[in-house]
Amino acid sequence: MQVQGTPYRTIWADESEKGVVRIIDQRYLPHQFVVEELRTLEEMCRAIGEMHVRGAGLIGAAAGFGMHLAAQTAPDKGFARYMETAAAKLLQTRPTASNLAWAVKRQLRAGNWDCSLAAKREKVFREACEIADEDAEFCRRIGEHGRALIEALSKKKGGEPVNILTHCNAGWLAFVDHGSATAPIYAAHAAGIPLHVWVDETRPWLQGAKLTAWELKEEGVPHTLIADNTGGHLMQHGMVDLVIVGTDRTTRCGDVANKIGTYLKALAAKDNSIPFYVALPSSTFDWSIRDGLASIPIEERSGEEITHIRGLTAENSLATVRIAPEKTRSANYAFDVTPARLVTGLISERGIMAAREEDILRLYPEMS
Amino acid sequence: MQVQGTPYRTIWADESEKGVVRIIDQRYLPHQFVVEELRTLEEMCRAIGEMHVRGAGLIGAAAGFGMHLAAQTAPDKGFARYMETAAAKLLQTRPTASNLAWAVKRQLRAGNWDCSLAAKREKVFREACEIADEDAEFCRRIGEHGRALIEALSKKKGGEPVNILTHCNAGWLAFVDHGSATAPIYAAHAAGIPLHVWVDETRPWLQGAKLTAWELKEEGVPHTLIADNTGGHLMQHGMVDLVIVGTDRTTRCGDVANKIGTYLKALAAKDNSIPFYVALPSSTFDWSIRDGLASIPIEERSGEEITHIRGLTAENSLATVRIAPEKTRSANYAFDVTPARLVTGLISERGIMAAREEDILRLYPEMS
Repeated sequence: MQVQGTPYRTIWADESEKGVVRIIDQRYLPHQFVVEELRTLEEMCRAIGEMHVRGAGLIGAAAGFGMHLAAQTAPDKGFARYMETAAAKLLQTRPTASNLAWAVKRQLRAGNWDCSLAAKREKVFREACEIADEDAEFCRRIGEHGRALIEALSKKKGGEPVNILTHCNAGWLAFVDHGSATAPIYAAHAAGIPLHVWVDETRPWLQGAKLTAWELKEEGVPHTLIADNTGGHLMQHGMVDLVIVGTDRTTRCGDVANKIGTYLKALAAKDNSIPFYVALPSSTFDWSIRDGLASIPIEERSGEEITHIRGLTAENSLATVRIAPEKTRSANYAFDVTPARLVTGLISERGIMAAREEDILRLYPEMS
Repeated sequence: MQVQGTPYRTIWADESEKGVVRIIDQRYLPHQFVVEELRTLEEMCRAIGEMHVRGAGLIGAAAGFGMHLAAQTAPDKGFARYMETAAAKLLQTRPTASNLAWAVKRQLRAGNWDCSLAAKREKVFREACEIADEDAEFCRRIGEHGRALIEALSKKKGGEPVNILTHCNAGWLAFVDHGSATAPIYAAHAAGIPLHVWVDETRPWLQGAKLTAWELKEEGVPHTLIADNTGGHLMQHGMVDLVIVGTDRTTRCGDVANKIGTYLKALAAKDNSIPFYVALPSSTFDWSIRDGLASIPIEERSGEEITHIRGLTAENSLATVRIAPEKTRSANYAFDVTPARLVTGLISERGIMAAREEDILRLYPEMS
């Protein structure tokens, strides 16, 4: 998507410069646009763990490229074992994200390592590029399927702007391109359908205020930033027509792990009969589990993300301020699980389906 | 309650120094403890409107003392008209708070102005002091009634700490003393009942992080600060036994206007069968209305409270940082309405009642 008019992806590697992966370092957005070069597995692990990159699809793509960086220093003999160790390191960085495990496994399976070292490394590089390309393409298709939903609401409203609420950043910054929750928004906007986005700021990390608002601004999509507390009030007063969020892991029965607070918005949508959709490329499905509340591990992050906030001072320098009394204890659960009963539908690269195992498997029969 | 071991109220006036009202200027908490002197109606209006003082009961007490400051410059002839003008100015400062109108009306009614100027002024001063004393006393009684709820849960848990979630600051800082939602907590803590409080940080103004966490720390009550998004997850996992919040206006049928985001917590409590109580002195009832969603005006505040956050830098100076892209449009609704159907019960100075007109009127028959 666009950054000051220039198309970007969130992660990329040049054919001509293998062993170097470039990312947008999202910790500096929206204040500074910083591109970071990563050259080792350790640098990639830090970039994922410390959220230089974040978001379901991007974590997957980053893990794919992390394996590529590992392969650059893997020995010919013991290549497979070396790669398995690299995979284990990547898996430790973020426990909730499904795409991370998916991408790492895909890389481990890619190998028939019965070839030269150069060929092994080339296979891993190709697979990383494919994971990234596929993520971008799947998001593009999510946009096409989801656009139809927005179009229908627009017709129902006689062309009045469709008000869409989103939580966190499931935008192109969370994937390689297009985004999941934002893909239908970008597709509808490109098709000239009037719309307006309510952007949850998304405490504690403020992905909405820092990333989604920035993305929408760069793409020229009308939007309004709100505190996470606000969505229920807006829904009670008819100011939200549709909720679309992303997900970090979705079970085969349609339970949805997503950024902490998503469950509260799903409850409010249900209470006010507002459609609540979850957009995801199929790489985000965890086909091995059914009950999200019982089976999805919820990452706990540093309490400092609650007690301290980083932003730009009036003098244009980045600063961190403390908002609570000194040494206040805080708890920082990064995700929650929205039960399938609260989800109107899932939007994937293959189409729209109800959040029910039988409906999901109708589109993914190979997972039966 | 205690500030570094010394008992304080949030607002006070000395008999010997009429025309001076002192408040804790809450904008500097938790970082600095600042006492501000107010000498005119205009200063009091600014203190209320710009939230040097805030919270249901304290706004009422501040309005009562605002009328006292006005009376100090009111002329003997035209005293009543002068006071009505002062009342109108106070009423404009915060539109949602019920106690504001209640206190101002009480002051206007206090007067039989058929006496000397000094006597008129004295009446207004006495009434202001009474409003404040009554607020403190009613909150103390709320504590007694609510303590029984916590005690029962404590027994049920075999003495394990009772986990109580609260939103915003309905603590003693929101009243003259004790608080509404916190009064049962302080009473139970004083009685040696083990408990732990989940403190919603309460964006945008961060009353939870800045005020409730500070209060609980000063009183030595165990607590953990969380992002507002977190409560649903905690409730899903059995980590919350009870929710107690305050209210800025409650209808005679039990619809509850409170800080934005309260409705979302009430939905989550309902979904997880967790008792959801609202604590209020009866001055917060608006007996004239039934339907909160239709009839309670919701204050909209400056969007800067969303896009900018104030806190303490590592160098111990107060600074404001911007967290969103420049010129991002934001919406800042300060309150929402929780329908009575989601409220387990109300705790007032007269006892505990269901959030239903007939039950409320059983305790307040004079309002039938």
